[in-house]
Amino acid sequence: MEERAQNEPEAAALVSDTGLAARPSLCALKDRVRSGDPRALGRAATLVENQMPGGRELLDALFADTGRALTIGITGPPGAGKSTLVSQLTRVVRAQGKTVGILAIDPTSPYSHGAILGDRIRMQDHHSDAGVFIRSMATRGQLGGLARATFDVAMLLDASGRDVILIETVGTGQDEVDIAEMANVTVVVLAPGLGDDVQAIKAGIMEIADVFAINKADLPGADQLEQDIRTMQSFGESAERKAAAPVRRVIASEGRGIEDLLGAIMNVSNSRTGSRSSELAWQNRLRHMLRDYLYQAVPQAEIERHAQLISSRAESPYSAVEQIAKSVLPL
Amino acid sequence: MEERAQNEPEAAALVSDTGLAARPSLCALKDRVRSGDPRALGRAATLVENQMPGGRELLDALFADTGRALTIGITGPPGAGKSTLVSQLTRVVRAQGKTVGILAIDPTSPYSHGAILGDRIRMQDHHSDAGVFIRSMATRGQLGGLARATFDVAMLLDASGRDVILIETVGTGQDEVDIAEMANVTVVVLAPGLGDDVQAIKAGIMEIADVFAINKADLPGADQLEQDIRTMQSFGESAERKAAAPVRRVIASEGRGIEDLLGAIMNVSNSRTGSRSSELAWQNRLRHMLRDYLYQAVPQAEIERHAQLISSRAESPYSAVEQIAKSVLPL
Repeated sequence: MEERAQNEPEAAALVSDTGLAARPSLCALKDRVRSGDPRALGRAATLVENQMPGGRELLDALFADTGRALTIGITGPPGAGKSTLVSQLTRVVRAQGKTVGILAIDPTSPYSHGAILGDRIRMQDHHSDAGVFIRSMATRGQLGGLARATFDVAMLLDASGRDVILIETVGTGQDEVDIAEMANVTVVVLAPGLGDDVQAIKAGIMEIADVFAINKADLPGADQLEQDIRTMQSFGESAERKAAAPVRRVIASEGRGIEDLLGAIMNVSNSRTGSRSSELAWQNRLRHMLRDYLYQAVPQAEIERHAQLISSRAESPYSAVEQIAKSVLPL
Repeated sequence: MEERAQNEPEAAALVSDTGLAARPSLCALKDRVRSGDPRALGRAATLVENQMPGGRELLDALFADTGRALTIGITGPPGAGKSTLVSQLTRVVRAQGKTVGILAIDPTSPYSHGAILGDRIRMQDHHSDAGVFIRSMATRGQLGGLARATFDVAMLLDASGRDVILIETVGTGQDEVDIAEMANVTVVVLAPGLGDDVQAIKAGIMEIADVFAINKADLPGADQLEQDIRTMQSFGESAERKAAAPVRRVIASEGRGIEDLLGAIMNVSNSRTGSRSSELAWQNRLRHMLRDYLYQAVPQAEIERHAQLISSRAESPYSAVEQIAKSVLPL
């Protein structure tokens, strides 16, 4: 509350300025983000998340400081225990003296919107730790906006010197896959006993897993679940890349198996330090950013005019797209 | 199997032709789709889903025949019983003498990829009914491709004279929201007893519901669930539009409450017959299609060159996007 109140006048003040050098407050914010100040991070995150004036310049100015953090995507169906696992991974990483940034995109996450349904703030242990920065991302933004916003805030966390960034997201939908692909390492969390329907979800997320975590491994069905994963790996389309994704068993609620899981994550990360893998990741992200940018370049009046023609069946949708594109693209 | 084998040679033959008039096989396919032939529909769906040559021309040629079907989106968390509900709605619609098309996008759906985990083909009743066309859509396609493919196949079903099109999708992720927004009416299916985590998902899908279906209404917790929905409706941001979304209780496994639910769906549909609402829907779809079109217009070489610069921190991502866009856009 207090942060928001302070935030808005500052953002408003930035509107009239141009360029980072001409914006003392933005320059100060940049320095404070770089120093790791959590309040500055929160303010900066609000700027870039909502695409407020100054956010873009801030990201540009901080970009040279990025590229050091290890970004771990934690994904999986509701009920698999992702939030508890994120909390436990945070504990282990902190015990190693490293700092952590958490981005919660999962709508079921106890620290995001889901919290309105109850007081399920399992992360309370970490809320008083300045070495842990927690940010909930809205799950329903504008088209393609969630992946962009998540990536931008992750860059801020990276520039602020956070050693490890954990991105928690429920593993369905293209947006979630896009977000998982941003991470250096993607962990898919599954659990026995979620029922047929939920287990079936794993058919969709098998291919993005770098590491599998079987949570609640003390429950009956853990063996079967591991066997299912192995079976599906042997059928995998992208077998050459993902077949070897290691499987680790954890009991997150008791903190068991977490070090072992983190070790498997680090192994994957260490195997990917080449600049080639970084370039491929950037190709992916660039295409995303371009898509959103070009999308915004199309005038609303053109859209409205053609929507009317289509609605009256005077024009087909694909002809409309071609005509609008012709008016926007040089070709 | 047989269908696929027949399908590929035909698609290949189309490659060398240009224009629908010059393509006798495509012209014949169009006529057979219009006549409602299920085999032709399956073939046409494969063409447009995979963006094979001829697909675009087929959609253009059939567009004048679209706009008559009622499209119903069925969404909700895994375990809510969406597939059973789709099957029951199909039964009731068929009993009224109307034809049905079903698009299953949900990865947990028994007739999509989820089926590899078990023989859960609850739709077997309808498989022998020529008045019911069932198509499973792949859940992991290219960027933004799932929404496009779903929409294109729905247009084919519409042109083929299907009276009602049911689109089943698990309700998380931007793609799912996009798909739900394509439908004339969106039904959000919830059920008691799915656990805290799963219930929390509804925080994300409240806003897209035109109608709520509380499935498994005989289970304890149905009252509480309805109360939760009412409470959240009273807090809703888009209260003016969605606050009145009716709530209906069903027991899909026993076929109870289905007529009542369908009545609520028809009420919403009847209230939306104005051309204004059709135009707004088309604006939405046009923006989607344009985003994908423009995205594909960017040369891969440019992407690669800038990804390399970014990866070596010689350029910031947003500068890269601006430069690439400048080279593509006329401004």
